[in-house]
Amino acid sequence: MNPPTPVTADHIRTVFQRYVELVTRGDFEAVALLYAEDATVEDPVGSAPHRGRAAIREFYRASAGMVHLELEGRVRVAGREAAGAMIARPTGAADVMIETTDVMTFNDAGQITSMRAFWSPDTIYRR
Amino acid sequence: MNPPTPVTADHIRTVFQRYVELVTRGDFEAVALLYAEDATVEDPVGSAPHRGRAAIREFYRASAGMVHLELEGRVRVAGREAAGAMIARPTGAADVMIETTDVMTFNDAGQITSMRAFWSPDTIYRR
Repeated sequence: MNPPTPVTADHIRTVFQRYVELVTRGDFEAVALLYAEDATVEDPVGSAPHRGRAAIREFYRASAGMVHLELEGRVRVAGREAAGAMIARPTGAADVMIETTDVMTFNDAGQITSMRAFWSPDTIYRR
Repeated sequence: MNPPTPVTADHIRTVFQRYVELVTRGDFEAVALLYAEDATVEDPVGSAPHRGRAAIREFYRASAGMVHLELEGRVRVAGREAAGAMIARPTGAADVMIETTDVMTFNDAGQITSMRAFWSPDTIYRR
């Protein structure tokens, strides 16, 4: 086995960019593979976390193709943790925007070990 | 004693706005009073947290007047937690920007109980 690639800020930013692209594409299998096997997803913050890659895949499958997601501004990387502001537009409701900030942690292999999405009814806007 | 005011998204957004104004003004006493008595501040993420309002006041005192801080985009509020993207410009170095996202939690009294600032050498830019 090769030694693990150091997890750089560039790697973490690339994962965030891939994440918004893959979610927008509805490719829930590929989204799930960004996560570690035992990762957790709390989306939105305050809800019961989805635990493990299988549960995470089902979570993304349920909303596949229903949202266009893009980054807002630059991702703030601090070591193995990072926060990325995003704007989500539900498909078929172009005037609605859900603003979220996703906070992720990463393991030595560069996989996401946890994701917490900061959004709520208080972060939904109409243009 | 009056019953606690419900902690609304508006309240949390107001605290973030006050926070950036008070930090910019260098009013470390007022910044400390935004925090609960037993709050923690981890700034940047990955560093040893400052615990308690007295330690937090000293932390802000040390950098008072050294930075101009403003919000970037809207604060993402999810219940009693929120994430706010910010840009910090060190005084006397107008071409330098430090991008941070501060994640805060709040208690029933509307005070900040924890703050974690997502920034690092990887989030410092020159214009």
